[in-house]
Parts: sequence; C-alpha cells; structure tokens
Amino acid sequence: MGTAIRIDEDRLWNSLMELARIGATPAGGVNRQALTELDGQARALFSAWCREAGCVLRTDPIGNLIARRPGRNDSQPAIMMGSHLDSQPTGGKFDGAYGVMAGLEVLRALHAAGIETERPIEVVAWTNEEGARFAPSMMGSQVYAGLMGLDEALAVRDTEGVSVAEALARIGAQGMADSGSRPAAYFEAHIEQGPLLEAERKTIGVVSGGQGQCWFQMTLTGRASHAGTTPMDMRSDALVGAAAIIGALDRIGRAHPPGCATAGRILVSPNSPNVIPDSVYLTAEIRHPDDAVRAAMELEFRAAADEAVKLNHLDLNLAKVLEQPAAPFDPACIAAIRQAAERNGYPSMEIISGAAHDAVALSRIVPTGMVFVPCAGGVSHNELESAESGDLAAGCQVLAEAVLAYARVSDPVTPSR
Amino acid sequence: MGTAIRIDEDRLWNSLMELARIGATPAGGVNRQALTELDGQARALFSAWCREAGCVLRTDPIGNLIARRPGRNDSQPAIMMGSHLDSQPTGGKFDGAYGVMAGLEVLRALHAAGIETERPIEVVAWTNEEGARFAPSMMGSQVYAGLMGLDEALAVRDTEGVSVAEALARIGAQGMADSGSRPAAYFEAHIEQGPLLEAERKTIGVVSGGQGQCWFQMTLTGRASHAGTTPMDMRSDALVGAAAIIGALDRIGRAHPPGCATAGRILVSPNSPNVIPDSVYLTAEIRHPDDAVRAAMELEFRAAADEAVKLNHLDLNLAKVLEQPAAPFDPACIAAIRQAAERNGYPSMEIISGAAHDAVALSRIVPTGMVFVPCAGGVSHNELESAESGDLAAGCQVLAEAVLAYARVSDPVTPSR
Repeated sequence: MGTAIRIDEDRLWNSLMELARIGATPAGGVNRQALTELDGQARALFSAWCREAGCVLRTDPIGNLIARRPGRNDSQPAIMMGSHLDSQPTGGKFDGAYGVMAGLEVLRALHAAGIETERPIEVVAWTNEEGARFAPSMMGSQVYAGLMGLDEALAVRDTEGVSVAEALARIGAQGMADSGSRPAAYFEAHIEQGPLLEAERKTIGVVSGGQGQCWFQMTLTGRASHAGTTPMDMRSDALVGAAAIIGALDRIGRAHPPGCATAGRILVSPNSPNVIPDSVYLTAEIRHPDDAVRAAMELEFRAAADEAVKLNHLDLNLAKVLEQPAAPFDPACIAAIRQAAERNGYPSMEIISGAAHDAVALSRIVPTGMVFVPCAGGVSHNELESAESGDLAAGCQVLAEAVLAYARVSDPVTPSR
Repeated sequence: MGTAIRIDEDRLWNSLMELARIGATPAGGVNRQALTELDGQARALFSAWCREAGCVLRTDPIGNLIARRPGRNDSQPAIMMGSHLDSQPTGGKFDGAYGVMAGLEVLRALHAAGIETERPIEVVAWTNEEGARFAPSMMGSQVYAGLMGLDEALAVRDTEGVSVAEALARIGAQGMADSGSRPAAYFEAHIEQGPLLEAERKTIGVVSGGQGQCWFQMTLTGRASHAGTTPMDMRSDALVGAAAIIGALDRIGRAHPPGCATAGRILVSPNSPNVIPDSVYLTAEIRHPDDAVRAAMELEFRAAADEAVKLNHLDLNLAKVLEQPAAPFDPACIAAIRQAAERNGYPSMEIISGAAHDAVALSRIVPTGMVFVPCAGGVSHNELESAESGDLAAGCQVLAEAVLAYARVSDPVTPSR
C-alpha cells in the first residue's frame, strides 16, 4: 500500500453501540424500521458524525443518504461504501448498521490521519433495505441502480396506509435528483447472516457474488376422505404428494452444492388427524450462484412435483413468484478484498452471499465487492444477533484498504487482478 | 326361513326423511348433536313410532333408549338391533339414523305381519355415538359394554361446561339401571362411510369386524435458519424430517393391505417461505384388522421416524395417544348376514369396518354382526351424505332376516356357521 491506514476498533464498536440505542429493544435488539422517526434519528446521528469527519451530506429522491469526502480530483467518479440503517422489527445491532458504521470509520481514519485520496469517497445509508415496513426489500439501492422505478417506490404504502413519499417527507429525508456520475466501484461490509465463517473459523468472507434465486407457490388438490375407511389405493392424499416434493427439494439442494432448495411454508386442509388432506399450499425456493445450475435444479423440482402429483392423483397449481439472476461480483474488487485480508493475516475464504444485499443491486451497474464477517451461530434478523468486536474491526480494515486501493492515495495504485 | 318377512322400502325412507327434519340444515344435512333439545325430539319421535309398533320403551343410566318387542319366551335374552340418533355438527341424514330406522322398520314389519318370535327383540338408540359435543365417541355403547365407567361418562362436559348428566336430565333421557340380561346377539345396519361398496358395485357389505387402530402425536425439533445462507449439510430442517415420515407412513399403509396409515394434521413453525422450519407437530394413525400386523406396521413407522430424525439432526417427541385392538365380529352373525344377502340375490362382499361403530363396542361382550350399504362417493360426516333408497331397503331386509334367524319364529332356526 502507498499509505497505511489503521482503523480504530474501539471507535467502530462504540459508534455501533451508540447507534444501537436508537430503537433498542428490551431483549437487546433493535427495532428501527425504514423511514420511521427512529430511522430519522439514526440518519441525523450518522450525518453529524460524517460532517465531523469532513464530509458533505446529501439525499437523493428515494432518501438514500450519502456522505461525500472530496477527492483531490473531485470530478472523478467516487469510490462508494455503504449499507443500511433500517432494521427488522425484531432485528439486531449489526445487520446493515455495521456496513454504514464501517464506512464511517474509514472516513474517520482517513480524516484523523489527514490522508488525501485522488478520488472522492462516499458512504451511503440506503433507504429501506429490509422491506419490513415497505415492500420490496433493497428499495433504495434498487431505485439507485435503476432496477425499480422511483415513482413506483414512492407510491408503496405500509400497513397503515402511509406511502414511502409521505414517510420520507415526515422525517425530511427526501432529497433532489442526484446529478453526480456513477461511482467507480462499490464496497459493502456486512455480517455473514449464515454459519459458514464461524464453522470454518475464518474472520473474513471474500464474497464472490450474490446467488440467483427463484421462489414458487403451489397448491396440491386431492380428495378429503375418512382415514379409516378409504383404502390406500383409492386415496388422493395432498399431504403425501407435498411430502414427496419437500423431500425432492432437499435432495435437489444437496445434489447441487453450494445451492439450496427449501420448502418453508405449508398449510394443510382440513388438517384433522383422521381425515385424508385434500389441499396443501406449499412454498419452495431454489438458490444457486450459477444461473444455469439453478435452471437445472428448477427442472428437477418441476419433474419431481409432476411425479408426486401423478402418483397421488392430485391436481397441481404451480406459480413462480420471484426470479432473480445470480450477481457475480467484480473480479478486481474481489481481489482487492482478498489481498487486504492476506496483507493483514486474517483467515479468509471465498463465500457466496446467500441473502440479498444492497451490494447485489449495485453490482448490476458498477464493479462491486463485499466483505463478510462472522456472526454468532449465523443468527440474524433476530434480537440475539451478535458479532465480535475484533472481527468487525478486521472487516473494516479490509474494507478500508480495498477502498483506498481504488480511491488512490498519493501514488496511484492499480488494483491487482 | 320359517317365516317370510318383507320390509317396506317406502316406509323406511319416509321415516328417515321425517327424522331428518329434526335438526335439518339449509345445506340438506343434519345438526342434531347428542343430548341437545333436538336429540330429545328425535328420541321422542322414535319412541312414539316404537310404541305404535307394540314396543315398550326404557332408558338406561347413560340414556341409551331401548325399544323392546316381547318374545313368546320373554325371559330369554333378546336379539338387539341399533345405532344412534345423534349427528355431527355438519352431519348427514343417514349416519346412525339409518341403523335406528332400519331396526324400527323390522319391528314394524313384524308388527304388521303379526309375526311372533321366540325371543324378545330390542332396538337401541345409543347415546352420543359421534362424540362431537361430548368426548369420547361411542359413549353410550361403551358404557353399556363396560368399556367406560358410567360416572366417568356422566361427568364429561361440553365446551359450555354442561355435563352429560345435566344434559341427560334436561331432556329427560336418564333412566334407571338396566336389570335385563345381555342380549344373545347384536346387529347394526349402517352406511359404509367409505368408497368400497360403490366402487365394487355391491349392495351389501358383510362386515367381518372393526379394525384395530393406534394414533400418534409427534413433535420434531430442528433449528430455524436462513434458507439462503445455511448450506444444505448444516441444516436441521424439521419439515424435511416430517416429510420423510409422511412418505414412510404412506408406504407402510400400502405394504400391508387392507391396513391404512395416515398423517392428517401438521403444524409448522415459523412457517415462513425463506426460513428453515425448526418445529413440526404431526399426527399419525395406523389401522389394520389384524393386531399383529398393526404392531408390525407400528414398528416400521417408529423405525422410519427414527431414521428421519437421525438423517436431519432433529429431536423427536413421539407419543401414542390411542390404541384400540381389532374387533372381529361373530362368525355365526356374519354368516347369517351373508346368507340373507345371498337369499335375496343382493350383490355382497366381505368388508372391514374402517371407522368405529357402536357395534365394535358391543362385539366385546356379545356376538355381533353388521350390515353396510353404500353411500355416494363414500362421503359421510358431511351434509352432502347420500344413499339410495333401494340400497337402504336391501340392507334393512338383510338385517330383518338375520335378526329373525336368531330371534326364531315358529320353527326355531339354528343359525348356520
């Protein structure tokens, strides 16, 4: 590295803990849903901290809050970091907040060391990543990346009838159209929200991309009849058909690592111990980082469903309700993260992002990289979500070095490939 | 036969239809739950009809209502027919009511023809066969057969806190201890409540006995986690385990005809499309006419459950909540029914009673036989329950001849074996 940067573990941890007071729940978690008053308080605190670190703040029309640290050559595209400040209703202290606070810590470390970069550096708090109050999730980053229309997003209403536009206005978070150019690269730090890093005893997950996914809803229809008087060979048992599909999904997932296939929700009618079920509603989802493999998994799933339906004399109504292609991240961004981990001697591994993130939306339009750090037991979207200060600091240090490699200090650094 | 008896199809049908007005539902069914005011009305109508046919009425302490037609030798044990007048909340016109009205029609045909029998003949309306208002089902016949204590039965309360004793008193249905001896035999006519007779185009089902059954409740416990970030080989998916058990039950049932194995009720937590289920509640029931085979089926089921639990890293809490042995009916009673069907040229087949009936309770203490007639689509416990007048009459004719073979007209008839 041309210039050494050291992030401050305690400052990062203390900022995370101070932020977590806004919307803190008795069980130790956070309830700070998008565009609520509490979200507004978190935005204000983040803004104040960024100004102290020499940044200028702006918001765009969907309320994405962007702190900008000018570059020596300020007309160049910025290097952007970010994540989100909103939480699930029973969320934790780290999901999203970590990525924003890690970006802030990079700004603070640069500011404290008086380091000047060629390119401007930006840290974004994306609006409504969780989708808990307003669907869909990743709303701010999707609008930013042109994957969702601004007007469509502004018109979404919560269960109390409040629109995104109204909620933005209430907390003063709606800004003007962003005239700036696209950033040159985007980096996001996040807790893994999965068990792999902990199981493999790695500190840093070098994220190779977001896996593709497709979601299905199906209804199997058979014939209800008495479980004691209907011979086995005269049955149309919708639950037996569903069970075959659930088992097939599990086998399909296992046969295509690192893919996943899951049935998570089932509703049975009449759901009585001695009545053969005549109707089952079932959800299925299939994920894989390689879209071609995922397509093959989908074909296997459909064949298994057809077979189960035929064997059990059922009718099947199957609908695909979501399809998102895989989002491989930029090889140079990935390399910059891997090299930063190696430089610091952090145990690291390549990992797929199983969950969706703002980085997945950003990867559609700019070179993107992502840093994962472990969270205890892989637990997230839960008030018990927990992470180690040392791991969070390591992820932040990697983030800082990857960003600096792109933002360029005195001696321009060409990212290695 | 020493004396010909011909039952009257129209009289039987008209009585069934008149009875069905008591508790009639708009959808064409019957809601006449045990020991309600409507049940009292049905008992009064049945009693009046029996008195017109020369019978004496009595009730026993659990409210079983018994019409007695004296025999020439009235001290001999009676030949008993019966079924029940109570219905499911959304029941049909024939379940139970048919057996009582068929018994009444036999009494009427004897009365009209002036036929005297050696032995007395009794027709019983058993209290609370359905168990819909007061659990368990077959309460009256179980108390009669000594399978359930009288005091225990009288203390059972409905959901509004009314006890069986109170409900009996309200409709004046509680009688005195029955000092009479056990009947010499018991015969019951009933709609099949299953699809076999209709499928095989048979008019008469010669019931060989009630199958044994055991019921299970189980809870499978795994670990909830994100469906997108938890690798397949790190999962404890309770729904995948349950699906394996459901599939195994179906295979076990098919491998042991005419047995049945069914999973009817399932509750999943958290039941969200993208969360791996951590808890599943599942019911299972296994039935077979041969208790030894049923025991083997249970062992196979338990082995399959253990295997599913092991493969998916789950905990299993499995409880057997019901066990009823098989109840083979009396060979001579069965033969009397078969011969009556043959004499009349009715297509018949031997059949197992898949559901429980008052006759199953009676079979524990006296020689018992049962006549099934088809019901449309095998549908019962349903307002759409339907049966053909001609089939009902055929079943009643068979019942009459089997009863007469036992009750003996002028020339004593020895039942064939």
